[in-house]
Amino acid sequence: MEKLEHIGIAVKNLDESNKLFAKLLGKPHYKIERVEVEGVRTSFFDVGGIKIELLEATRMDSAIAKFIEKRGEGLHHLAFETEHNEQKIKKLSDDGFVPLSDQPKKGADNKNIMFLHPKTTNGVLIELCQEIK
Amino acid sequence: MEKLEHIGIAVKNLDESNKLFAKLLGKPHYKIERVEVEGVRTSFFDVGGIKIELLEATRMDSAIAKFIEKRGEGLHHLAFETEHNEQKIKKLSDDGFVPLSDQPKKGADNKNIMFLHPKTTNGVLIELCQEIK
Repeated sequence: MEKLEHIGIAVKNLDESNKLFAKLLGKPHYKIERVEVEGVRTSFFDVGGIKIELLEATRMDSAIAKFIEKRGEGLHHLAFETEHNEQKIKKLSDDGFVPLSDQPKKGADNKNIMFLHPKTTNGVLIELCQEIK
Repeated sequence: MEKLEHIGIAVKNLDESNKLFAKLLGKPHYKIERVEVEGVRTSFFDVGGIKIELLEATRMDSAIAKFIEKRGEGLHHLAFETEHNEQKIKKLSDDGFVPLSDQPKKGADNKNIMFLHPKTTNGVLIELCQEIK
């Protein structure tokens, strides 16, 4: 992994949290995006080139709703920019990391994304993301 | 906040987790440091200028031991570089954020640090850190 792309934070109410993080970070979010397939509404802040992504569930069965129900609001995932090629995925599997899907899927912010199971990454949900060209 | 300084991750066994994150990130940790007053042993990785700090408890009463007991291993805090001056702290308090201490204290990596109560920051433990000159 060469670059931390963003940090995902699960929130109950995106509009309220946008205000809170704007106060904390000293600048407002720069975009809002819905990802229907993931059941989330997201907003993005930029802090010196690192993105902070707030995620609000739009359905009860979204992963974010389940996360908040179990653990409350808070840090949800770290996303690293990386290529999703077969060798890379094979190398991660060989190293003991378990991808949560066979193939990358479309995420927010014009990215193809994959996750690694947090049981294999010290409890940290890791997203691998790659800009869609 | 102008810059994300590091991301803190709570781990049970620093030596094992150093190996795991070296595989995941593709490079080893570059230092290990004990912070006796906090009851932690820490290691640092660099990913494109952002530090990832792994934290292992060295005492049962350390905040990291309590965190892991309650929530398991995983994402623990976000640290932002900022000045610890009175105006800054007053502004944060006026904005509804609650510092966990009256004054900054010595942390790892030659930093003075303060935390904001996660109940006031969407469940995210926020560290404010400043290099000791």
